[in-house]
Amino acid sequence: MLPANEKWFTEVCKEAGSAVSWRVETHLAHETTDYQTIDIYRTSDWGNLMVIDGFVMLTTRDNFLYHEMLTHPALFSHPNPETVVIIGGGDCGTLREVLGHFTVKRCTQVEIDEQVTRLAEEHFPELCERNNDPRATLLFDDGLAYIKHVAPASVDVIIVDSTDPIGPAEGLFGPGFVADCFAALADGGILVQQSESPLLHQRLIAGVRDNMAKAGFDAIRTLGFPQPCYPSGWWSATQARKGGTIEPVDPERFDHSGIQTRYFNPAVHAGALATQLP
Amino acid sequence: MLPANEKWFTEVCKEAGSAVSWRVETHLAHETTDYQTIDIYRTSDWGNLMVIDGFVMLTTRDNFLYHEMLTHPALFSHPNPETVVIIGGGDCGTLREVLGHFTVKRCTQVEIDEQVTRLAEEHFPELCERNNDPRATLLFDDGLAYIKHVAPASVDVIIVDSTDPIGPAEGLFGPGFVADCFAALADGGILVQQSESPLLHQRLIAGVRDNMAKAGFDAIRTLGFPQPCYPSGWWSATQARKGGTIEPVDPERFDHSGIQTRYFNPAVHAGALATQLP
Repeated sequence: MLPANEKWFTEVCKEAGSAVSWRVETHLAHETTDYQTIDIYRTSDWGNLMVIDGFVMLTTRDNFLYHEMLTHPALFSHPNPETVVIIGGGDCGTLREVLGHFTVKRCTQVEIDEQVTRLAEEHFPELCERNNDPRATLLFDDGLAYIKHVAPASVDVIIVDSTDPIGPAEGLFGPGFVADCFAALADGGILVQQSESPLLHQRLIAGVRDNMAKAGFDAIRTLGFPQPCYPSGWWSATQARKGGTIEPVDPERFDHSGIQTRYFNPAVHAGALATQLP
Repeated sequence: MLPANEKWFTEVCKEAGSAVSWRVETHLAHETTDYQTIDIYRTSDWGNLMVIDGFVMLTTRDNFLYHEMLTHPALFSHPNPETVVIIGGGDCGTLREVLGHFTVKRCTQVEIDEQVTRLAEEHFPELCERNNDPRATLLFDDGLAYIKHVAPASVDVIIVDSTDPIGPAEGLFGPGFVADCFAALADGGILVQQSESPLLHQRLIAGVRDNMAKAGFDAIRTLGFPQPCYPSGWWSATQARKGGTIEPVDPERFDHSGIQTRYFNPAVHAGALATQLP
């Protein structure tokens, strides 16, 4: 039982019969936008907590795991990522990691709900510290339409940093979007998509991989990593490449990048690429 | 909020301001022993759940992660583990993994509370399937005293598969026990101890590592891995070696072992050895 004399926020994962809770001190924001409901809480031990439609998006304390593992494996498995598109990612933590790569010349973030970014600027300012980088473009628009209309073969890496596959993000898990990503990517380009829990969502992961295979991608890998604030605490990103293989980063390249991490490193990268789906 | 019309078991991690819950269908057992209180529940989606003094020990669904990662990295970093001692481990899942190694000639499990094993035999029979292996000895005794009195330099690998560092397991996190383990190990021997969450329990991990260093161990490594049923879903094992380094398993040796795993493999081993404490 949760202590009755304290306030707690609980996310129930109905399909898995489990739940995760945080002790909260203050309800900092509650906004209903055209797309969803966004809440921000101050917690006792995890910093700030963002919740969309009742599902936890991130906490101050543990988001580094997700943002590092969605970004660095994909960019380091591309020989020279210059043009990057982020679909979703409104908290800007993925954008910050992408812009840490000096190879990147332009990064476009296409978040459907501007209010996610505005609340992140206020409550997760450390994630937004590169939003004014001249290489960054922040669009508030429909990611499905953006990818459909981008110039063919013009993007090196597409990162799908979405909410769960219900609500506004549902189309991002469909075959049409993945096929449009394939067309948008240059040869050797990489698509990476957050793909839920390796323990709890194996059918979803199989669907993501199937969409990628049917779209014509040549290499498909699901990388596991810890992510405490999501159901089961074990999460995944599924990558696919338009021609070529997906290899872990060479340690010399990682050192030369100058990128500082708290979780990702070359051996962790190789280990994540070797994730077995249990 | 947890659904009011369902039964849920919740473990609150007070020091971290977080909690994890499971939907339960039946309370299968409730026993108070000389050492602790043990509960077994049938859950809706995680199989059976064992709880000791209110802390989750394991579920049917996800214990493979913990048991594989406590056992295989330690045994595969030893050139020829023949004599293994498990302190705690009453659910017998670690014993089962150890006995999968054909190099092992004898494995002694020293669990203080026989009732843990009796309940595991009933509710987690798959973990107990090697309990009658002629190489196995199951003692129900005090692990602290066992290690103090074992013949010096007689053990290749000691696995400390304990509950949290309060109650009966408190002494297993003290410097005296670790020094006794050092004396019990043969040259090149390896001690591995479950060491809580890399995200939530950094002070405890520092203490475990400090005890190992002070006891005279030469190589100390903390390996991270996902473990959904424990607080934060990210857990660790800390290893130390009595002389020599700790290296990941050679892929050929792993293949030759014939051991089947759902999480552990050579690249995952190397990645876990590269865990940074955030």
